[in-house]
Amino acid sequence: MHDPTSHTLLALYTQIATLKLLPRTGWLQRGVPNAESVAEHTFGVATLALLIGDTIDGLDRGKLLAIAMLHDLAEALLSDLPASAKRFIGSDHKHAAERSALEEMLAKLPNRAEYLALWDEYARGCCREARLVKRIDRIEMLALALAYERAGSRALGEFWEDIDDGWGDEFPVLRELAAEIMERRTASLSLPFFQGQERAER
Amino acid sequence: MHDPTSHTLLALYTQIATLKLLPRTGWLQRGVPNAESVAEHTFGVATLALLIGDTIDGLDRGKLLAIAMLHDLAEALLSDLPASAKRFIGSDHKHAAERSALEEMLAKLPNRAEYLALWDEYARGCCREARLVKRIDRIEMLALALAYERAGSRALGEFWEDIDDGWGDEFPVLRELAAEIMERRTASLSLPFFQGQERAER
Amino acid sequence: MHDPTSHTLLALYTQIATLKLLPRTGWLQRGVPNAESVAEHTFGVATLALLIGDTIDGLDRGKLLAIAMLHDLAEALLSDLPASAKRFIGSDHKHAAERSALEEMLAKLPNRAEYLALWDEYARGCCREARLVKRIDRIEMLALALAYERAGSRALGEFWEDIDDGWGDEFPVLRELAAEIMERRTASLSLPFFQGQERAER
Amino acid sequence: MHDPTSHTLLALYTQIATLKLLPRTGWLQRGVPNAESVAEHTFGVATLALLIGDTIDGLDRGKLLAIAMLHDLAEALLSDLPASAKRFIGSDHKHAAERSALEEMLAKLPNRAEYLALWDEYARGCCREARLVKRIDRIEMLALALAYERAGSRALGEFWEDIDDGWGDEFPVLRELAAEIMERRTASLSLPFFQGQERAER
Amino acid sequence: MHDPTSHTLLALYTQIATLKLLPRTGWLQRGVPNAESVAEHTFGVATLALLIGDTIDGLDRGKLLAIAMLHDLAEALLSDLPASAKRFIGSDHKHAAERSALEEMLAKLPNRAEYLALWDEYARGCCREARLVKRIDRIEMLALALAYERAGSRALGEFWEDIDDGWGDEFPVLRELAAEIMERRTASLSLPFFQGQERAER
Amino acid sequence: MHDPTSHTLLALYTQIATLKLLPRTGWLQRGVPNAESVAEHTFGVATLALLIGDTIDGLDRGKLLAIAMLHDLAEALLSDLPASAKRFIGSDHKHAAERSALEEMLAKLPNRAEYLALWDEYARGCCREARLVKRIDRIEMLALALAYERAGSRALGEFWEDIDDGWGDEFPVLRELAAEIMERRTASLSLPFFQGQERAER
Repeated sequence: MHDPTSHTLLALYTQIATLKLLPRTGWLQRGVPNAESVAEHTFGVATLALLIGDTIDGLDRGKLLAIAMLHDLAEALLSDLPASAKRFIGSDHKHAAERSALEEMLAKLPNRAEYLALWDEYARGCCREARLVKRIDRIEMLALALAYERAGSRALGEFWEDIDDGWGDEFPVLRELAAEIMERRTASLSLPFFQGQERAER
Repeated sequence: MHDPTSHTLLALYTQIATLKLLPRTGWLQRGVPNAESVAEHTFGVATLALLIGDTIDGLDRGKLLAIAMLHDLAEALLSDLPASAKRFIGSDHKHAAERSALEEMLAKLPNRAEYLALWDEYARGCCREARLVKRIDRIEMLALALAYERAGSRALGEFWEDIDDGWGDEFPVLRELAAEIMERRTASLSLPFFQGQERAER
Repeated sequence: MHDPTSHTLLALYTQIATLKLLPRTGWLQRGVPNAESVAEHTFGVATLALLIGDTIDGLDRGKLLAIAMLHDLAEALLSDLPASAKRFIGSDHKHAAERSALEEMLAKLPNRAEYLALWDEYARGCCREARLVKRIDRIEMLALALAYERAGSRALGEFWEDIDDGWGDEFPVLRELAAEIMERRTASLSLPFFQGQERAER
Repeated sequence: MHDPTSHTLLALYTQIATLKLLPRTGWLQRGVPNAESVAEHTFGVATLALLIGDTIDGLDRGKLLAIAMLHDLAEALLSDLPASAKRFIGSDHKHAAERSALEEMLAKLPNRAEYLALWDEYARGCCREARLVKRIDRIEMLALALAYERAGSRALGEFWEDIDDGWGDEFPVLRELAAEIMERRTASLSLPFFQGQERAER
Repeated sequence: MHDPTSHTLLALYTQIATLKLLPRTGWLQRGVPNAESVAEHTFGVATLALLIGDTIDGLDRGKLLAIAMLHDLAEALLSDLPASAKRFIGSDHKHAAERSALEEMLAKLPNRAEYLALWDEYARGCCREARLVKRIDRIEMLALALAYERAGSRALGEFWEDIDDGWGDEFPVLRELAAEIMERRTASLSLPFFQGQERAER
Repeated sequence: MHDPTSHTLLALYTQIATLKLLPRTGWLQRGVPNAESVAEHTFGVATLALLIGDTIDGLDRGKLLAIAMLHDLAEALLSDLPASAKRFIGSDHKHAAERSALEEMLAKLPNRAEYLALWDEYARGCCREARLVKRIDRIEMLALALAYERAGSRALGEFWEDIDDGWGDEFPVLRELAAEIMERRTASLSLPFFQGQERAER
């Protein structure tokens, strides 16, 4: 007979581990053949949150990374709804469903309350750490779109249209990073094949 | 300059073809490595609808197959919501979202009205063809669960619990078919490996 | 002990379901990484048959869709022979092998006779429904080639050469559709990446 | 302007390399999710031919390995016809088609004649090297079936039925090897999971 | 012209993102068909580190998660060396190679020094956060082995042998968790198929 | 009870067969979605060794093909270390690790000594057969890079830079072959899509 915590943790992690098996739907819809999983996306967001967060003063690293790990956790039950689905389900309704799913997943955890609070902060963007993760969630997607174009995709044009949506108002480094990604991509358009950094910049 | 129909058809089919790329989420969540796509599921349902429908008197084959082809079409925009997601989104809300997505997809087609009417009949189960497709939608999943267990999956136990939910009230052949699948599966449980039909029944 | 029909149906569907696992060989030979399965191809043909068939007067929808579902069924036993194989096996011999395979598969079905008759009509193209499915079998491939080029493939040039082989003699909408696909593709050639419909047409 | 040989070699190898993309159809039909390619099968046959051939006196290693590399080469054009297909195409007809395909592939090679002669010896089994490759072609499949069962497949029962078809009449080491594989498999049947060699033999 | 940081970040993240494409070699060697990527493994370790770390008093969450995100980062250049490789490369040599790779990756980052220090703490296990991540790195693998057995694998027996290697000396919750995983697995051995938690425990 | 040889052969082949499951890491790092396995690479090298070797006078075909089959065998234990890893592990150290792994794999084989000697000749390039396999190991990679670019990859630019590193000093046919591949690739750069040989050369 075990303590409730370990029992709870295993049941929860069994759900969470399914995020390794769920491809991100938006890429699938565009025919990306080796589309990342939700778990891989979260890995990317958390890694960038660590690296970028440390270049910005006054952020709480523990809070920042906790938000990054939690931001898409509910997709283990909800699956990854593509943009095309959100139009019909409605973002308020989706938000509510996501929160209930997260509540159910975390129900038996000692500190469920703090996790839900962090997730609410993320959803509302009401602290700097939350807003940074939100931006990185978008910018990581741009970096990956560049990688998928390098791998061959010619179906990702739209991803590049609304790129400059105020990235840098709060975090100048993100404006720089977005511009950098954009420039790399533009350089590639005029070449038959992507070349190493330096050659692309000639 | 082309007639609007061909223009509409290509735009629509480009959306529909993405169903070849969307795996059925329920299988993914259970770790099935080569999970079927929504398009493959629809293929299975339509093929069984043809074969089974023809053993039942008084069905309209054209209507039956049209319903089979249309029943999951909206998932091209909505994606395939697993059972775990329906609990949080709510089946009424999901139904409404699905119908709006289908409406948008078919908006410019000359006979959108008939297709939406067929889909409504399916959703409400208010004609024999619709109810048959609904049953087959379930039974095709059982046949596939058997195939995935044969391929190795040991995670599909739950799929077998509520198997006898009145399959045969209206269509006795479905009761027989469900029982047949059930028996094949039970026979396999006592064997280290699935054997050919005959050997399994010895 | 069950009625023979359900026993027959399960054994047959077990064969048919393998079409979900067989990739279309022609795409594989050209390095398409997420090549569709035979089941996905049939889904595409049947869906287009429904949508296009309904824009043409005087077709029997039930017959049309039955032919679409049956046209490649024998590949569950024969596998998908690429064009390069047909040259050496011979189309008459391949036709005979396909028919015997289909006969064996359907042998115990009450209405095997009708299905074989429908398949013969398809093979001979001796009714409008059969000829429409035959055309759609080709045009669905073109629509998919466009999707694979959008996903990155640069190996499908040859698919575009004999495109205008009398599509529209009997079904003008197919001439329009083929031209539409062709135009979309040509527009893409002059662009580094596929853009949304409207931008591509600027 | 290049010498004809290099031109011929590149065109030929472009065809041959597609064998890396063609999964072995028999495994696909049984739901093996990561089915080997024809190229991987040939790799296995050639490696075993080297290792086993060297334990047998009086074989020509160069001839043995050349036969192993050539035995399935024609599948680059013909694709991998499963056993179920051979029943309908006929083995004589398949043999003839395979040979014509190979002839076409090798047509411009300086030593096409020798390769075709080696392939004919393989097909007729009229030299020891040819017969050894033929046996290994079967036994490599058994070793792989064991690997796929270890990976989870429960659908390969039939592969084990006619195992002892005179392996050892000419090459006793093959009788030993087949018996060894068989024993490992039998040991696994009584265990919930495959264990390391030693534990399985306790 | 951009600030060096954004330039550095993009170049670095382009390397890091390849971890989404590298399957964990140990699973591949055992035939797991949908083996997780290194990025997915890191996601699992970081998520468990968050959930478990919060049940233990006096840990620095920011440090804990930073170590989790960094612990396998060098594999973007080194690839994932399986246990069988470590025997021949030598763990000291592997350690040195990993550290040089990490140094090169982080060379231009403002806080490279802190990251390398964290990685050294991880390697030496010389702080509680580092030792916790090290344990979780092992236990996450056990949880995943259970998931792969549920998905069908019968080749993971060895993963279960040295399970109780002092998990709980420092962190009792890990002893409980390991025992819980072990029990779930043992329960499954006596069943033909994995059942839901409750049924398995009846 | 079996003779030691068959026991040894099965244990060894079980290791070797894992090469069918290991993708070549270099392609993965560049996002190639259907990257070849080590076994497929070896198949390609051995097939080219056969075809090219036969156009060169005075080579020992048995020795040539044995070297081709053995050259990457140790990767079954070591995995496929990408170029980026070799920089940190050091080529001498990697060489030593590879040799020890091969020694262990072959330890119980009657003719392990000859195989290790052949592998040493390959590593040192101290016979014509060894040098030819070494060259082909590179040129096969170029032919495949061309195939992956045809399939869509735009990330392989660097593979083309040091192409002319004295291919032909010893084997003029390789200079021709490399130039041929190069020309085909250059022709493709100026086209939106790869065309058939003849059209590309217009």
